[in-house]
Amino acid sequence: MRDFLPAEKARRERVLGVIRNVYRSHGFDEIETPVVEDSARLHSGLGGDNEKLAFGILKRGLTSEDFAAASDALDLTDLGLRFDLTVPLARFYATHRAELSTVFRAIQIAPVWRAERPQKGRFRQFVQCDIDIIGEAGPLAEIELITATTAALDALGLEGCSIRINDRRILTGLLTHWNVPAELHERALITIDKLDKIGPEGVAAELAEHGIATEGLAAALGASGWGLLDDAPEWLDAEAYQALLDLRAAVPSAELVFDPTLVRGMGYYTGTIFEVAHPSLGYSLGGGGRYDGMIGRFLGTDVPATGFSLGFERLVDLVDLPDAEGADAVALLHDKDASASQLVALKTALVGRGHRVRLERRPKNTKATLERLAAEGFSRFAFVNAETDAATLELRPLS
Amino acid sequence: MRDFLPAEKARRERVLGVIRNVYRSHGFDEIETPVVEDSARLHSGLGGDNEKLAFGILKRGLTSEDFAAASDALDLTDLGLRFDLTVPLARFYATHRAELSTVFRAIQIAPVWRAERPQKGRFRQFVQCDIDIIGEAGPLAEIELITATTAALDALGLEGCSIRINDRRILTGLLTHWNVPAELHERALITIDKLDKIGPEGVAAELAEHGIATEGLAAALGASGWGLLDDAPEWLDAEAYQALLDLRAAVPSAELVFDPTLVRGMGYYTGTIFEVAHPSLGYSLGGGGRYDGMIGRFLGTDVPATGFSLGFERLVDLVDLPDAEGADAVALLHDKDASASQLVALKTALVGRGHRVRLERRPKNTKATLERLAAEGFSRFAFVNAETDAATLELRPLS
Repeated sequence: MRDFLPAEKARRERVLGVIRNVYRSHGFDEIETPVVEDSARLHSGLGGDNEKLAFGILKRGLTSEDFAAASDALDLTDLGLRFDLTVPLARFYATHRAELSTVFRAIQIAPVWRAERPQKGRFRQFVQCDIDIIGEAGPLAEIELITATTAALDALGLEGCSIRINDRRILTGLLTHWNVPAELHERALITIDKLDKIGPEGVAAELAEHGIATEGLAAALGASGWGLLDDAPEWLDAEAYQALLDLRAAVPSAELVFDPTLVRGMGYYTGTIFEVAHPSLGYSLGGGGRYDGMIGRFLGTDVPATGFSLGFERLVDLVDLPDAEGADAVALLHDKDASASQLVALKTALVGRGHRVRLERRPKNTKATLERLAAEGFSRFAFVNAETDAATLELRPLS
Repeated sequence: MRDFLPAEKARRERVLGVIRNVYRSHGFDEIETPVVEDSARLHSGLGGDNEKLAFGILKRGLTSEDFAAASDALDLTDLGLRFDLTVPLARFYATHRAELSTVFRAIQIAPVWRAERPQKGRFRQFVQCDIDIIGEAGPLAEIELITATTAALDALGLEGCSIRINDRRILTGLLTHWNVPAELHERALITIDKLDKIGPEGVAAELAEHGIATEGLAAALGASGWGLLDDAPEWLDAEAYQALLDLRAAVPSAELVFDPTLVRGMGYYTGTIFEVAHPSLGYSLGGGGRYDGMIGRFLGTDVPATGFSLGFERLVDLVDLPDAEGADAVALLHDKDASASQLVALKTALVGRGHRVRLERRPKNTKATLERLAAEGFSRFAFVNAETDAATLELRPLS
């Protein structure tokens, strides 16, 4: 987990501000849930492999007898840090449904935690930017999510992103077409999900290990794109096919790529799935899909739901937004004999005129200090001695 | 811990935005630390009673043998959720000192956690807004903190707040003057801290129980205000006295009240202490003080430090800021036969013109929906049928 120093914190907040504003203008509303959820909810099977990575919070007031009686970590924990924003959203919606719009469009911009081994580019606390639409069964939900996400990426100046798209029902059709028995579908999807890493031959070999016939499969895994969809092979699920055509028609500006081998790791997806990639990166910037069954787990009645999550930590490294505030920042470099009252009066006067103001002791050699202040975004400075007042203060440009 | 629905989340973010902007214009810089810290650091004695309220995070990969061998919760936890923002700041400064300005002014606006019993008005996750100045030994630090805090309260429209101020060295002088032996000072301060709740007579009685002579003490506890300071009784610590006079001279606009019985709970304070109160409330909105010894605990060398923390949860209930965005929000109420492509095209066109846009299915009875949209801050709406396009779209005022 990381500390963020002023320049990096400001950079992150600028990027988050752009994403938040785009999502808001697309009609989404921000909500917030506590960082901890009940252990039972975090370990209900909805979080897939991430459940194993949840940090557990020790129950309060336990005695050494309680410790001795525990056979499992879950005996000692009642709460845990959330590992994603989807499980908390489902719980939130089930709790507050009566107070929310029939079709509810949520923004969640917040940290999640996973107890991963520390490694380069992987963090145990990281920020996700999720938008979800709950209560819309038709493809309008997917269309609004993809439109808002591509608009956010555009606003960040990330040109050339493409969105790979597929549907869990198409995967099921494909596996059935390949004569994979239903009980091996989940196993097969885990293998197909490795296509990027191990290639079509690797996937075919691993499937064979599991007793899945692979004749012609490697070649088929190489095929992709809308051409395949336009051919409308007989194994294509009809509803999924129509949804993808609707999507393609409605989102002409986005770079949509149909990829019948896209899996997405989470088991809760029931329909469309998508992933966003940037040409300069070997990994995705985010993804999502339709998860119509999940809310029902908490609510008792099924409610259609779709979501799109951006991996903020990957995004923020690609983006450099200008600091819009810098123009008004003033540094007052004061002599030792300037009084505290005098300095605060000067500062207050400048703040009142709309400036950001920092007081600094005037160093013997000002060059390095002035350079640092310019780098920090200050645009003007003034020297202050015991006689300086608001009338005689002379602001000079920095740089 | 609480969920925040859209209207409340937006309200909270507006208030946080005002506080953040005021603090930034006063020359403070925002930083961020992880929500968890090492258990050893959270239980180093700096957090006072709050240490007992820290949520501990179970170590990963423990076995039932580990559980059985544990005699204390700290044997099973290596991390914990922070209970304040001061201990993390001290750790942050000790880690990053070389990269920070000589005098470092930090903003931290972030949640903290305390495992308190649930009760009205007390939350287990709540937001604190802290500003701290590290590296400034003189009263300029206190003056900048108080000026920035009162400016933030003014910007929130909280008129009439007053700041009670004291100095730990004055308390020590007072106790010595009352012949309280040094080894009972801490015990006496805990009792004096209850003055608001149990009154001068109650304090005198409780002190007597601890064997502290109380003749004339109850009357002295009732005295307060600058008059006492102007009398300059012989027990007044000279340095503390001068610092308070400097403060009073430099912060003429704020309602500063000298209160020689103000204690503040935390043991780490070494000099000035202050608390902010609103006339309509029986409790403080925040407080802070000088804690020159704490950074040294992490760094090895003492560095002067002062901080002022606002209790955001108490503040936010007092404040009602207008929603500046509402003017541009448009709701499109569409018939069932409007196509997804058509709706997204309309939405995109309006977003492009700077509107916030929400799509909603047109209900049979629109009156209730229009009222709800107005309450949510939407200012205009349009009906959309299968024929509507950007040219024929007619925006009507809501209200």
